Amino acid sequence: MRKQKPLSLHPDRLFPADPATREIARHLYQTVRDLPIVSPHGHTDPRWFADNEPFADPSTLLIVPDHYVFRMLYSQGVKLEALGVPRRDGGVTESDSRAIWFRFASHYHLFTGTPTRIWLDHVFSTVFGIDERLTPDSADRYYDRIADCLAQPEFRPRVLFERFNIEVIATTESPLDPLQHHQKIRASDWKGRVITAYRPDPVVDPAFDRFTENVAQLGALTGEKTTTWAGYLAAHRKRREFFKSLGATTTDHGHPTALSCDHGAATCQKLLDRALSSAITPDEAEQFRGQMLTEMAQMSVDDGLVMQIHPGSYRNHNPAVFSSFGRDKGADIPTRTDYVHALKPLLDRFGNESGLTVVLFTLDETTYSRELAPLAGHYPILRLGPPWWFYDSPDGMQRFREQTIETAGFYNTVGFNDDTRAFMSIPARHDVARRMDCRFLATLAVEHKIEEDEAFELAPQLAYGLAKSAYKL
Amino acid sequence: MRKQKPLSLHPDRLFPADPATREIARHLYQTVRDLPIVSPHGHTDPRWFADNEPFADPSTLLIVPDHYVFRMLYSQGVKLEALGVPRRDGGVTESDSRAIWFRFASHYHLFTGTPTRIWLDHVFSTVFGIDERLTPDSADRYYDRIADCLAQPEFRPRVLFERFNIEVIATTESPLDPLQHHQKIRASDWKGRVITAYRPDPVVDPAFDRFTENVAQLGALTGEKTTTWAGYLAAHRKRREFFKSLGATTTDHGHPTALSCDHGAATCQKLLDRALSSAITPDEAEQFRGQMLTEMAQMSVDDGLVMQIHPGSYRNHNPAVFSSFGRDKGADIPTRTDYVHALKPLLDRFGNESGLTVVLFTLDETTYSRELAPLAGHYPILRLGPPWWFYDSPDGMQRFREQTIETAGFYNTVGFNDDTRAFMSIPARHDVARRMDCRFLATLAVEHKIEEDEAFELAPQLAYGLAKSAYKL
Amino acid sequence: MRKQKPLSLHPDRLFPADPATREIARHLYQTVRDLPIVSPHGHTDPRWFADNEPFADPSTLLIVPDHYVFRMLYSQGVKLEALGVPRRDGGVTESDSRAIWFRFASHYHLFTGTPTRIWLDHVFSTVFGIDERLTPDSADRYYDRIADCLAQPEFRPRVLFERFNIEVIATTESPLDPLQHHQKIRASDWKGRVITAYRPDPVVDPAFDRFTENVAQLGALTGEKTTTWAGYLAAHRKRREFFKSLGATTTDHGHPTALSCDHGAATCQKLLDRALSSAITPDEAEQFRGQMLTEMAQMSVDDGLVMQIHPGSYRNHNPAVFSSFGRDKGADIPTRTDYVHALKPLLDRFGNESGLTVVLFTLDETTYSRELAPLAGHYPILRLGPPWWFYDSPDGMQRFREQTIETAGFYNTVGFNDDTRAFMSIPARHDVARRMDCRFLATLAVEHKIEEDEAFELAPQLAYGLAKSAYKL
Repeated sequence: MRKQKPLSLHPDRLFPADPATREIARHLYQTVRDLPIVSPHGHTDPRWFADNEPFADPSTLLIVPDHYVFRMLYSQGVKLEALGVPRRDGGVTESDSRAIWFRFASHYHLFTGTPTRIWLDHVFSTVFGIDERLTPDSADRYYDRIADCLAQPEFRPRVLFERFNIEVIATTESPLDPLQHHQKIRASDWKGRVITAYRPDPVVDPAFDRFTENVAQLGALTGEKTTTWAGYLAAHRKRREFFKSLGATTTDHGHPTALSCDHGAATCQKLLDRALSSAITPDEAEQFRGQMLTEMAQMSVDDGLVMQIHPGSYRNHNPAVFSSFGRDKGADIPTRTDYVHALKPLLDRFGNESGLTVVLFTLDETTYSRELAPLAGHYPILRLGPPWWFYDSPDGMQRFREQTIETAGFYNTVGFNDDTRAFMSIPARHDVARRMDCRFLATLAVEHKIEEDEAFELAPQLAYGLAKSAYKL
Repeated sequence: MRKQKPLSLHPDRLFPADPATREIARHLYQTVRDLPIVSPHGHTDPRWFADNEPFADPSTLLIVPDHYVFRMLYSQGVKLEALGVPRRDGGVTESDSRAIWFRFASHYHLFTGTPTRIWLDHVFSTVFGIDERLTPDSADRYYDRIADCLAQPEFRPRVLFERFNIEVIATTESPLDPLQHHQKIRASDWKGRVITAYRPDPVVDPAFDRFTENVAQLGALTGEKTTTWAGYLAAHRKRREFFKSLGATTTDHGHPTALSCDHGAATCQKLLDRALSSAITPDEAEQFRGQMLTEMAQMSVDDGLVMQIHPGSYRNHNPAVFSSFGRDKGADIPTRTDYVHALKPLLDRFGNESGLTVVLFTLDETTYSRELAPLAGHYPILRLGPPWWFYDSPDGMQRFREQTIETAGFYNTVGFNDDTRAFMSIPARHDVARRMDCRFLATLAVEHKIEEDEAFELAPQLAYGLAKSAYKL
Repeated sequence: MRKQKPLSLHPDRLFPADPATREIARHLYQTVRDLPIVSPHGHTDPRWFADNEPFADPSTLLIVPDHYVFRMLYSQGVKLEALGVPRRDGGVTESDSRAIWFRFASHYHLFTGTPTRIWLDHVFSTVFGIDERLTPDSADRYYDRIADCLAQPEFRPRVLFERFNIEVIATTESPLDPLQHHQKIRASDWKGRVITAYRPDPVVDPAFDRFTENVAQLGALTGEKTTTWAGYLAAHRKRREFFKSLGATTTDHGHPTALSCDHGAATCQKLLDRALSSAITPDEAEQFRGQMLTEMAQMSVDDGLVMQIHPGSYRNHNPAVFSSFGRDKGADIPTRTDYVHALKPLLDRFGNESGLTVVLFTLDETTYSRELAPLAGHYPILRLGPPWWFYDSPDGMQRFREQTIETAGFYNTVGFNDDTRAFMSIPARHDVARRMDCRFLATLAVEHKIEEDEAFELAPQLAYGLAKSAYKL
C-alpha cells in the first residue's frame, strides 16, 4: 500500500520567510485569529439557515455549485456534464456523486498554487478533520468521511454557523425576492444574525433575463406603476424599506462598467420606456444602468443603506457554456474598468454628502493605485472594498495593500468580504485575509514604516472593526 | 498622566528585513546620505528665499497649503473650512492656527502607512527636534515647539536651505511671472542657488483660467503680436530666454494627456484663433496643447532647455471643492495615459535629435514596463522621470525600479525629484528616495543580479549624479 | 596595470536572499539544471545548422544582429552606423569588428540591472570561458578570446547545439520560405532536431512589405488561385502541410492587436480584394488580420498545429530608424492590448474545441491577472505563453507567476520560450527561467502555500515537461 501524503495546515502558512517578520506576523495573528467573523457581503443561501436541513453529499456541497472549482477542470478538458453541473435543457449529466468526487480528486493537482486549494484544504482539515491529502487514492476515504459528517447534527447549517464564530452574515437578494427565509430565521428561536442585501440587477439592468417581466413584478409587489419613472423609483424605495426591515444595511450593484449618469426626468422616462420595450440599444441600456446607479445613491442618502459597486465583469463570455448551463459557470471575465470618468456624474451630485458611503470594488487591479486609492483618498463618501473574486487570494491581497494604502490610508478601506456562496470555506477565506493583513502589517513594522504598536492597533481593525463600522453592522 | 509614545527615526527604516540585504543597503546608504540635495523640479516659493522672512505658524506652514495632508482628512469627513483652507468667496474658515493643529493631530492616525506620515515624522524629528509622537495629547506641545522654532533666526528659509544641504533648487513659474523674487535672490549676497523653470500651462492650455487674457499679457510682456501663430511662438522664445537668464534649465508641461501634434502653420493659426475665442471645443483644445508640446520640443532643440512632460491628471475632479476652494485641493485624480501613440508626432520629428532631452513622468504605473521603459530604452532624447505624486512613496519607488530598470537600464533615468511645495519635507523626501534606491541596489547585489561594486558606483548616481547631468545643473 | 574585475557566475544568482528560501530554491534547481533544452519558439537561423559553418567574428555574432544590445546604446546616443548595423541604402557603416566591440565594451555599464547583461555574462563565462568582466580595458582580450574560439571546430553550430543540450529547437519561417535549410538538416547524418514553425504574417498582414506580391507568390508555390478567398485559404492549408512535413507543430501570429473576426465568405472575399489592391484602409486591414486569426484556428482544428498569438507590438515606431535600417531595430514598442473582446469571435467558434491549443502571449502585463489568467482558467483551448520580449527577465518572470498562477494554475501555462535569434544566449535564457521558477516554487513552499514535494514535482514540468506536451514535441 502506498504511503499517504499528510495534510496539515502549517501554523505559519502565508507568513513571509524572513524570521523577524514572521515572528511579528505570528504575534499579530494571535490577536485576530479568534475574532468573530463579520461577513458583510456574500452569497450564501438563507434557506440553509432558515430550514437547517443537512447538506446533501460531498459533491453537491463542494463541487457542483462552485464555479472556482469546475472552471479549472473545464479549462483542462473535463466536461461540465461529467461534474454534475445541471444542464438548462435537463439533459443527462453525471448523477453519481462519488464519481464526480473521484473526477475532482484526479484533477486536484490543477489547483496547486491557487487560493481554491488553500480554502479546500482548510475545509478538509478543520471542518472535516481529514489528515491526508486529496489524491485519486484517498478520494474514496474523503468521500466517506465527508458524507458521514454531513449526516451528523453537528454539520447542520446553524451549528456550523456558530462553530464558525460568525457574528453576522449578509446574503444577497433580488428586489423580487419575498425574503421568506429571512423572515423564517427571524421568527425562529435561533439567534444567528443573517441579514439580506438589496441587489437590484434583475430590475435595473435591461440586459438581464426577463427584465420587463421583472419590472412588472416589482410593480405588482409594491403597488407602484413601474412603467412610469416616478413609480419605478417609488417601487425601489418600498422594496429597500422592506429589505431594511429584514436587516439589510447595504445595496449591491454588479454592472458591466462603473458608468453613472445624471439625466433629467424626461430622458429617464424615455430610457425606461425603451428598456421595457424590446428595442433598447446596448448604449441606452448602459445609460439606464448608469442612471440607476445615481438614483440608488440618492436613495442611500435618504435611507442610509451603504452602496456597493462591483463593476467590470464581462458576464457569460462563453455562449456555448451559457446556453447549455446558464449563468455563473466560471465564464465571467474581468475587463478594463474606468472609474475616474465613469463615476463623475454620481460624484458631482453626491461625492461630498456626509451621510453616504459608497464602497468600490474592482476586477481591474490597474485602478488600485491610479484611480481607486486617489478617489478614496479625497471623496468623503468613498471607501475601497477588499480584493474581489480572482484577487481574493494571497498575492491579490498583497497587491491590494501595496497599491492602495500609501495613497488612501487604512481607514478608507473596509476590511474583508468573503463574497462567497461556499459556506464551508468562509472561515478559510477570513483566515487567509487575516494572515495576509498581519503579514502586511508585520512587513511595515519590521521596515519601520509604521511602529509595532500601530500594527497591533490596526490588525483587529482590518480583521473586524472596519467591516463593522463601514457596513453599519 | 499617560505615557508618551516616543518618536524616533529608526536608522534602518525602509530597508528590507533580510539581514544580508539590509547590511548592504546600510553601507550603500552611508555613501549617499550626506550628498548635497539636487532638486531639479519642485514648487517651493522663491519669495521665501528672496525675502527670507520667518515662516508664520505651524498650521500655516505644514497643513493649510499641503493638499496631501488635507485631502486625507477631507476623505474622512473633516471640512476644509475647519482646516483653514481659504475659500474663494472669502467666506469664514477656521482662523485659529492651534485649533487647526489639534484637528490635524486628532486625525494623524489616518496617515499610518502613507508617505506623508514618513515625511512629517522626519520633519518633526530632524527639523524641530521633537521626540514624542503626534497625538491629540501631544498636539499642544508640538504646536508650541514648532512655533518657538519658527521664531528663531535658524529657521529662516535661507538658513534652512543651507542646513538642508541643498546644492540647487528649481522653482516653477508661469511665463507671465516677472521672476522678481529670482532677481532679488541673484542681486543679494546670499549664495544659495535657486533657479526657475518655464511652465507655460497658463498660456498653452486653452482650458486654463483666463487663457485669452494670459496670452494677451504674454504679448504685452514681449512686444510680440500673440494673436498670430508666429508672434505667439516668438513670445515664448523670448520668455524662455528670460527664464534662462534666471537660471532655468528646464521647461515643464502638465497636460491632461501626452498628446503631441504636428500640424501645418495654417492649422496652427486656426487653432490659436479658436483658442483665443471662447468657441474652442475640447478636442481642439487638446490639439492645441498637443501642437504646443511639439513646438516646445523645437524650441528646446534650439535653446537647450530640458523638457519635462507631466501628463495624465484629471484636474479639479470635484466641482464643489473647486468652486469653493479653487485648484490644487487634493481633487486631482490620475487617469489612464497613453504614450506610444500620443508622443509619436513629437518623436517622429525630434526623437533622434542629439541635443534634446525630454523627461517623461506618469501617473499611470501600467505604462512603466509597457511603454515608458521601452521608449526610453530606444529613443535618444527620452529619459524617465522618477515616480511622481502619489507614487513618490516607498512602494511606488520600488515598483518604478522593478518595472523600468530591466528594460531601460539605470542610465535612462534621471534620479529623484521632490516636486514639492512643502519646503520642510525636502530632506525627508530625498532621504526616502536614497533609502529606497539603496534598498533596490542591495537587493540586486544580494541576488547577484549586479556586482556589489556596481551597486556602490550606482548609488551616488541615483542620489545625485544623474539629476545633475540630466537637468544640466 | 589596473586590477581586473573578475567575472564569475554566482551559483546562487537570482535566488532570494532569505536563507531558508534560497536553500529550497537551490535544491529545486539541482533537479532541473541539467534537463535538456526544449525550445518551442524562437528565431535562430536554420542555415547555421544546415551548413554548420563557423560564426564570423565577435561583433557580427553578438552585437550587430541583437536589437536588445544596440537599442540600449542607441538610446544613449551611439549611432547605429557606428555599431555596424547595415543601412538599407548600403551606406557606409562601421566595418571594423574590433572597433564595434570596443564601442560596445565602453557602454557595457548601460546594461547593469538588465537581462541582457545577465545573458551576455553567462555567454562570456560558460561559452567562452572568460573570467574577467567586460570593460574598455578588457575589450581587446575579450575580442581575441572570442575570435579564437569561433575559429575552433568546437564552436561550430552543430557542436554548440549538442553542448547546449538542446533536445529540440523550433525556428520560424514565412509560408514563402522553401525551407531548404530544414530539408538539408533532415537529409544530413546529423541528429539534431531542428523544426520549423508557420509564421504567416507576410501573407496575412496587408500592411506587410510587398503583401500583394507575397500573396501572388503563395499562389505560385501552391498552384492555388490566391485571389479568391477559397484559393487563398487552400494555399495556406497546403503550406501548413509542407511545414508539418518539416517538423512544424505550431503556427505563430504577430498581429498589432489580438482582434479576431468571423465574417461570412462574401465579406472575406471583399476584404481580400481590398487587401490585394492598394486601397485597403487601416480598419479593413485590421479586419483582414482578425479574420485570418479565426481561419488559422479552423485550420489548426483540422491539422493539429498549435497556434501562438503574439499581439500588441507597435512595430517600427521610429520612422527614421525604419527608413535607414529597416525592421527589428529596437524600435518596436508594446501597446495596451485587449483580449476579452478581441478574441471573442474566435472563442465563440472554437473556444470549447477539444483538439485545439492556442497559446496567448502579451506585451501588456496588465492583462495577466485581469484577462489572460481568467480566460486560460476557463477556456479549454487556451494556454498562457511565458513572459515575452522585454518581460523575459527576472522581475518580468516573477510578475508573470505572481499574477497568473493563482487564477490559472500552473497547468494552463506552457513552460519557457527563449524566443531568440541570439543562439549563444539560449542556455543563459533557459537558466534564468529555471532559476526564477525554482525561486517562485521555493517561495510558495517556504510560505506553505504549496507542499515541498509539490514544488519538486512542478519544477521539471516548468523547465521541460509543460513545453513538450503543450507544443506536442
